[in-house]
Amino acid sequence: MERTELNEFGEFKLIKHLTQNIKLKQKSSLLGVGDDAAVISPDMDKVVVTTDMLLEGVHFNLAYMPLKHLGYKAVAVNLSDVYAMNAEPRQVTVSIGLSNRFSVEAIEELYEGILLCCENYQVDLVGGDTVSSASGLVISVTAIGHAKESDIVYRNGAKEGDLICVSGDLGASFMGLQLLERERAVFEEDPKIQPDLSGKEYIIERQLKPEPRADIVRLLKEKKIVPNAMIDISDGLASELFHIAENSGVGCKIYEDKIPIEPQTDLVADEFKFSPVSAALNGGEDYELLFTIPQSAYEKVKDNTEIKIIGHITAESEGLHLVTRVGEQIPLKAQGWDAFRKKEEE
Amino acid sequence: MERTELNEFGEFKLIKHLTQNIKLKQKSSLLGVGDDAAVISPDMDKVVVTTDMLLEGVHFNLAYMPLKHLGYKAVAVNLSDVYAMNAEPRQVTVSIGLSNRFSVEAIEELYEGILLCCENYQVDLVGGDTVSSASGLVISVTAIGHAKESDIVYRNGAKEGDLICVSGDLGASFMGLQLLERERAVFEEDPKIQPDLSGKEYIIERQLKPEPRADIVRLLKEKKIVPNAMIDISDGLASELFHIAENSGVGCKIYEDKIPIEPQTDLVADEFKFSPVSAALNGGEDYELLFTIPQSAYEKVKDNTEIKIIGHITAESEGLHLVTRVGEQIPLKAQGWDAFRKKEEE
Repeated sequence: MERTELNEFGEFKLIKHLTQNIKLKQKSSLLGVGDDAAVISPDMDKVVVTTDMLLEGVHFNLAYMPLKHLGYKAVAVNLSDVYAMNAEPRQVTVSIGLSNRFSVEAIEELYEGILLCCENYQVDLVGGDTVSSASGLVISVTAIGHAKESDIVYRNGAKEGDLICVSGDLGASFMGLQLLERERAVFEEDPKIQPDLSGKEYIIERQLKPEPRADIVRLLKEKKIVPNAMIDISDGLASELFHIAENSGVGCKIYEDKIPIEPQTDLVADEFKFSPVSAALNGGEDYELLFTIPQSAYEKVKDNTEIKIIGHITAESEGLHLVTRVGEQIPLKAQGWDAFRKKEEE
Repeated sequence: MERTELNEFGEFKLIKHLTQNIKLKQKSSLLGVGDDAAVISPDMDKVVVTTDMLLEGVHFNLAYMPLKHLGYKAVAVNLSDVYAMNAEPRQVTVSIGLSNRFSVEAIEELYEGILLCCENYQVDLVGGDTVSSASGLVISVTAIGHAKESDIVYRNGAKEGDLICVSGDLGASFMGLQLLERERAVFEEDPKIQPDLSGKEYIIERQLKPEPRADIVRLLKEKKIVPNAMIDISDGLASELFHIAENSGVGCKIYEDKIPIEPQTDLVADEFKFSPVSAALNGGEDYELLFTIPQSAYEKVKDNTEIKIIGHITAESEGLHLVTRVGEQIPLKAQGWDAFRKKEEE
């Protein structure tokens, strides 16, 4: 493996090196990297902006997160926020802080992932910053989306009687993380033991390479459904339900047996003696969409395998509840992933 | 001094605590903090986006940089990039990574500075992220500006014969930094020695609390001047001239005796046995505007004390030169501040 030191390049040359082959694909991207700012010509009448910062040792561990996946995921999680507004992402800026322990080749790998995600979702990388860090790796992404005002969906529009829908399946990413953490610990104790992850590819991919649900946003558009409320599931289903309930002034009831969980998630959860429903409720990093639609839209979604109806919106006074398989009704708790508390517990 | 630990709050509550009093002032800010993304209604037909990441130990040292100033500066340097496009900043997002060594009160101070800069430039804080960091403090700001397409000024429009202008004065921020670094070293050796910075307030303020040149952008608009090229001076005059020259395919000639340098900068440079012209050329962090205008606009700027004409644009083949006080013509070198190399030297 070749290793080119960062200081052989210097900041300007590194940025030029990393961005020289970028071709802007969106007609709304008038100017990308290379000036004081990027210039964007809004496709539609409104622009949405979201940003996320990922820090080494907190949000990712390079021991099991390949740099290319990390780059992909850093962009993907921001696009997910744009889709959660029912908008179309078109541009991202990416700032990276990195220390000299990274080589130019390592950063190229990170960029490969960033650009692959941009390519897959037809988004342009239009700006950013690459700076020296005294210690760990930091990635900060801002995503810009475009939308018609009438299409934008907020967290605060859920109405009593709405059906609560989720896309895809939940809990897989969290169980994938548990698996990766365990294999890393085994490997650290005895590097001769190679991890056997066969048959677990799905949940690992869900953790390492999440895909934002562009398809769901397009499907809703096709079926002429504008959800009353929508949010992406980054901190666990329970936490996101609380956001919708608080912002909309409503309650909700969801059914344990309706929560979509893949067999592989069940299997690994069982191995870890962990409840798969708990992984879905509190695990996070699913990057699926959670949305509410009026009952009148039921016929339009009922046969779609990618959308599951898991419950309905109730009056605020009824609170938030989970109805278990045996019919017991238990209050939901928002135990979403919290970086500050997590550090404390460790 | 009260000290509230970050983990007493948790991530969601901290963000709510810090952002609860924010009032959106711009009518283009439809939705701020609190959903998956902010929603913006462009004021004019184009949107510009710029982002910068500041890392502890690389871009700032908390030993002499008060948190409030740091917050102010983090926003200010991004607004400067928006003004450098001849656009009006309207929104910022701010992501902060911080470790448990910071208290809630410390972060409140940082936010005070962020919000003060927003207030001073009538910009809305519409989003961001507050996450746990394993080590140092990281701040990543994205600024959104609005502009008419015909007003946007790039780096690539400079034309032979153009007058080269700079706003304000140069080199002060760099000398302020030298002074702060020296006083910190003295203090670390003997904490009983209190730094005496009287009479040096100007250059220290230039380093700790730079002001982006909104006034110059408005003045140009008032005088109906659209510069052919513009950039803000963050890495030193020489480096920025190289950017304009490279992007525009031109050369330039500037005159040593025309470079605006404040007496206090001269004085401190002398104390440090440092050339003030070198501080202006290579020091950086001035956040003044460097722009080129056609000669026909000369009458409109010649009497303005905040704008100095320092030279003119030449043919590309003539290269980039500085004419010294004694009439000697020496080639300019771009030795701009480079985080990767700087680390190497230390």
